[in-house]
Amino acid sequence: MVIILKNNPNQKQLDNLLSWLKSMDLGIHMSQGANTTLIGLIGDTSGIDIELINALDIVETVKRIQEPYKNVNRKFHPDSTVVDIAGVKLGGGNFQIIAGPCSVESQEQVSQVAVAVKEAGAGLYRGGAFKPRTSPYAFQGMRAEGIKLLLEAKKISGLPIVTEVMDISHLPLFEDVDVIQVGARNMQNFELLKELGTLRKPILLKRGLSSTLEEFLMSAEYLLAGGNQNVILCERGIRTFETATRNTLDLASIPLLKSMTHLPVIVDPSHATGIAKLVKPMAMAAAACGADGVMIEVHNDPPHALCDGAQSLTPEAFQDVVKAINAILPHSFKGDN
Amino acid sequence: MVIILKNNPNQKQLDNLLSWLKSMDLGIHMSQGANTTLIGLIGDTSGIDIELINALDIVETVKRIQEPYKNVNRKFHPDSTVVDIAGVKLGGGNFQIIAGPCSVESQEQVSQVAVAVKEAGAGLYRGGAFKPRTSPYAFQGMRAEGIKLLLEAKKISGLPIVTEVMDISHLPLFEDVDVIQVGARNMQNFELLKELGTLRKPILLKRGLSSTLEEFLMSAEYLLAGGNQNVILCERGIRTFETATRNTLDLASIPLLKSMTHLPVIVDPSHATGIAKLVKPMAMAAAACGADGVMIEVHNDPPHALCDGAQSLTPEAFQDVVKAINAILPHSFKGDN
Amino acid sequence: MVIILKNNPNQKQLDNLLSWLKSMDLGIHMSQGANTTLIGLIGDTSGIDIELINALDIVETVKRIQEPYKNVNRKFHPDSTVVDIAGVKLGGGNFQIIAGPCSVESQEQVSQVAVAVKEAGAGLYRGGAFKPRTSPYAFQGMRAEGIKLLLEAKKISGLPIVTEVMDISHLPLFEDVDVIQVGARNMQNFELLKELGTLRKPILLKRGLSSTLEEFLMSAEYLLAGGNQNVILCERGIRTFETATRNTLDLASIPLLKSMTHLPVIVDPSHATGIAKLVKPMAMAAAACGADGVMIEVHNDPPHALCDGAQSLTPEAFQDVVKAINAILPHSFKGDN
Amino acid sequence: MVIILKNNPNQKQLDNLLSWLKSMDLGIHMSQGANTTLIGLIGDTSGIDIELINALDIVETVKRIQEPYKNVNRKFHPDSTVVDIAGVKLGGGNFQIIAGPCSVESQEQVSQVAVAVKEAGAGLYRGGAFKPRTSPYAFQGMRAEGIKLLLEAKKISGLPIVTEVMDISHLPLFEDVDVIQVGARNMQNFELLKELGTLRKPILLKRGLSSTLEEFLMSAEYLLAGGNQNVILCERGIRTFETATRNTLDLASIPLLKSMTHLPVIVDPSHATGIAKLVKPMAMAAAACGADGVMIEVHNDPPHALCDGAQSLTPEAFQDVVKAINAILPHSFKGDN
Repeated sequence: MVIILKNNPNQKQLDNLLSWLKSMDLGIHMSQGANTTLIGLIGDTSGIDIELINALDIVETVKRIQEPYKNVNRKFHPDSTVVDIAGVKLGGGNFQIIAGPCSVESQEQVSQVAVAVKEAGAGLYRGGAFKPRTSPYAFQGMRAEGIKLLLEAKKISGLPIVTEVMDISHLPLFEDVDVIQVGARNMQNFELLKELGTLRKPILLKRGLSSTLEEFLMSAEYLLAGGNQNVILCERGIRTFETATRNTLDLASIPLLKSMTHLPVIVDPSHATGIAKLVKPMAMAAAACGADGVMIEVHNDPPHALCDGAQSLTPEAFQDVVKAINAILPHSFKGDN
Repeated sequence: MVIILKNNPNQKQLDNLLSWLKSMDLGIHMSQGANTTLIGLIGDTSGIDIELINALDIVETVKRIQEPYKNVNRKFHPDSTVVDIAGVKLGGGNFQIIAGPCSVESQEQVSQVAVAVKEAGAGLYRGGAFKPRTSPYAFQGMRAEGIKLLLEAKKISGLPIVTEVMDISHLPLFEDVDVIQVGARNMQNFELLKELGTLRKPILLKRGLSSTLEEFLMSAEYLLAGGNQNVILCERGIRTFETATRNTLDLASIPLLKSMTHLPVIVDPSHATGIAKLVKPMAMAAAACGADGVMIEVHNDPPHALCDGAQSLTPEAFQDVVKAINAILPHSFKGDN
Repeated sequence: MVIILKNNPNQKQLDNLLSWLKSMDLGIHMSQGANTTLIGLIGDTSGIDIELINALDIVETVKRIQEPYKNVNRKFHPDSTVVDIAGVKLGGGNFQIIAGPCSVESQEQVSQVAVAVKEAGAGLYRGGAFKPRTSPYAFQGMRAEGIKLLLEAKKISGLPIVTEVMDISHLPLFEDVDVIQVGARNMQNFELLKELGTLRKPILLKRGLSSTLEEFLMSAEYLLAGGNQNVILCERGIRTFETATRNTLDLASIPLLKSMTHLPVIVDPSHATGIAKLVKPMAMAAAACGADGVMIEVHNDPPHALCDGAQSLTPEAFQDVVKAINAILPHSFKGDN
Repeated sequence: MVIILKNNPNQKQLDNLLSWLKSMDLGIHMSQGANTTLIGLIGDTSGIDIELINALDIVETVKRIQEPYKNVNRKFHPDSTVVDIAGVKLGGGNFQIIAGPCSVESQEQVSQVAVAVKEAGAGLYRGGAFKPRTSPYAFQGMRAEGIKLLLEAKKISGLPIVTEVMDISHLPLFEDVDVIQVGARNMQNFELLKELGTLRKPILLKRGLSSTLEEFLMSAEYLLAGGNQNVILCERGIRTFETATRNTLDLASIPLLKSMTHLPVIVDPSHATGIAKLVKPMAMAAAACGADGVMIEVHNDPPHALCDGAQSLTPEAFQDVVKAINAILPHSFKGDN
């Protein structure tokens, strides 16, 4: 970390800063330039609050030289992580398609869609049992019962299950779930992250709506710092001024994240765009730029055809997307590593 | 709610939509215009997912006529809510200044600052015991011990205590806390909101970094729907492209929120700007445009003078802000109600 | 256009609104619902300021049923526009790679790069003669002299020339330029757009940093309304809170724009990301999701090797990108039309 | 300027960088830390493109120590600039209220409103003759005729005139205009700025919708670099994800800008919020936090009462705002200088 001081810093404030830095067991390397003074810090600066130092009166600016994340950092773990999900590999060249309905609604629905997406080429099955809803009056998901139905669908289809957790207290229900998803709104629910870090089960961590890539990686760092290496990152769109799509899918984050971290990165084009007809081209683009997988919403046919045209695809449309992805994959970006 | 259909909608999809709407116990009023068809919905539409309908192929657009929030809506509760915090009133003309250190660090610090801000004119005392930190390696707060120190400071100063909760499982520690704060990152932690809705203790709900005002009110609605009427909203800046300040303080939200809801609305200029010298003018502006209070970070003097110049003020600077606010208040915006 | 009124609108304000609408030669279709009144407008509403009506006291909301753009609208011109640039076709299945240096710096540089990108597979040559610079003290481009050098490079390489105009008064210098570029900062320079609409020369219109897709298309509509059909749209990233990349490349805009308009849409991954190593994967993603071309910055070799590592590629790296794009193109998204 | 290099930089690239820096006549001060190398630059770095250097492979980060703006910088011009507009002073403790209609529509309208706002306490009169409109089909303003009407209104009311220019070629029409406004969309129309810099007439420069404060000041620097010292800055809201207001008024920018620059800073609450009822509280907040003025839209009474409820105020409502501002002003933030 390098701290650049303002011209003629107040000596008392400077002394306070230096003694505080020393109390953190950091080596200090002062360098006096023509019109500026720099303080280089040597040692483990990961516990330093960069915002705090940046806000000091005498500080012009402060920059980390080393990233604040260690366990997720590709520099220290050059090989790509491959997450093993009940035998299904994701990452390190293993591209996976996760598919399923937005919400678990009934046994018939869950089982039908599971079989359909399996046949179409999905490697993992997703469905929401606990549903984070903006309104307290909206359907909050089938909850415990929904997880049971997902596990039955797993038996029928053979596909491992991905589903979202919303609170630490629900975790006992997730014992047989294969991948626990942390939703965008919980990306910085640090107590939940700490708890999930104590598990060894794969975690699918979605990027928060207004999270920077560094914040995203720091949340993953919570999981790895706890000992859980089985983490999958998921880009699902960020909130911007543009309202033509629900969120703005930040595909440049895929190759960038993959250069920063060894963890696999997948893309959720359904939630990112909120528009069914954009799922296919965005899934193709995600595959082209090196994503390790995609997560796609698929609904079953009538009588629940309400969702026609929403962000969910029919099984037929999904099958078409799978083919398009598979045509792209042999030519996709493999990184420059 | 009014649904505007596209020209020549697919009849089968239209039938699906209509039968689904009927299954929700909604009255339906069709209206055929020159080149468009409208469906007016009569009844309680608060459980309807507007995004889902909006995404249907046959739907051009959908608009709520009634707001999706009921309990927080000023239309149905024209009188401003006054929250009583251990005898200290906030809202409905009662302006309160909440002050205290960012983090609880030691008994000496907590008690000194409490006495200092009380003398300077604060009505409530704040301090962080549980600290949401981007990095797993940063200080996570004194936690249970921190709450004990805050309660001791309360005894010494007589000021009611405001402090942040991060997880449902910690709630037993908050029994004697006067106001439970929900941080910006937890604004859509719906399970936490449901639990806090079962309490009758005042809740200070901070706006999420990328939350719209409607989403903010919907999170408050979770609390009121659970029966807890004692809710205080807090604008603390939103995330935008501008990096000159930590966040962008959205002061227009103050009069706008106060026209939408009967709940009191306060402003946190310290976190919003992250710059000490902006706290005073922004606190003055907040008072001028009708806020019901402000929340200001104050640190104690040496030996913890590290924070000089950060977003925290010294007790002396805080006293100056209190005077400036008090000069503005008699002339502040009182609303047009 | 449909105007939804608030409950019990003020009759005098309603009369004012209705008489104003009639003065605009619009047919009016009133529809009284259970708890809401709607006004359907029949006729040409493209001159109506939707924000003005939306802001009226008596108006709940207002929605266009028809898009405010006509000439660029795919609904009325289902066939994709193919722009012919001195014999080089772009759009409607014709993918083009535009390449060249950020700024024209010298004859040697411009000619060398032109020959190099031609050999590597570029179809058009770009270079900046007039440079919009944030700072008045930064190099403002070679201006008239730069255009001369570009035209010489065209003679040597045979590649048609794309270069940016900054002011109407400079247009006489662009007589022999093949494509006139309008930069992101000038996307809403309406006087310039009107002037360019009177030409028949191809215009490359870049999306503004904070422009919605609708605003982008309205700026293109200025050009077509003036009679110039030869318009190419270019997505080049939007400004968001994320600073890991210079801007956030909005690739979902590609298939979405192409469903809204018949105009070709290309992508500029160099300016969007500002990071050389992201140019290749983003160019591949752009090709995968159906873009009609890409625009890539290429610099020449030493002695001007300063740009190594910046957003510009060496001719060798560019050649590698061209190959990667060509491998994707046969499998790219062709739209659902 | 300080350049922080990555560990073990490529020597050839480093040599290229150093020789290029030397060619810019900059002194170079290398400093080798424990795990990092720093290059301090001595001399005039205002012409250096910081983004270019930041993007180099061997560069970790680069920071300016000195702001890139000189003429507008308060450091070098500690006294606040007072702009004299035909005898009306603005800045340096002189608060001015600019008022008038959005568009010039007729002689009767322009004159009536001018007299009304003069009586209510406005010091300057605004009205749009050239109107930047998103749609080519919307009313583009009365243009030359509109300026004539404004000048007649000036004769009648005695108020100096503020009106917007859209293109260099229109400048001859502005000879008798007192303040030339540069709209948000033209904030980075650098050719226009250069031309206006050659004048000595006051310029009102509005912040762009997605402009940082530094970019805003750099655009003002274009004007001062040309020799025109008479520049007024105007905050008018930035584009964010929030759609409850038209834009997000960034009031923290007022005290921040005033600490960065000696130029006066005013606020436009009408355009920023787009909602009439928010104009009063936001004008009061602007006054409280130290703005040098406000610009408010006022319309005349019937028969053009269409605008009732839009962002424009009636003359009576405007008078009420003036009183509220005047009550705040004696207690407003005066800065810490």
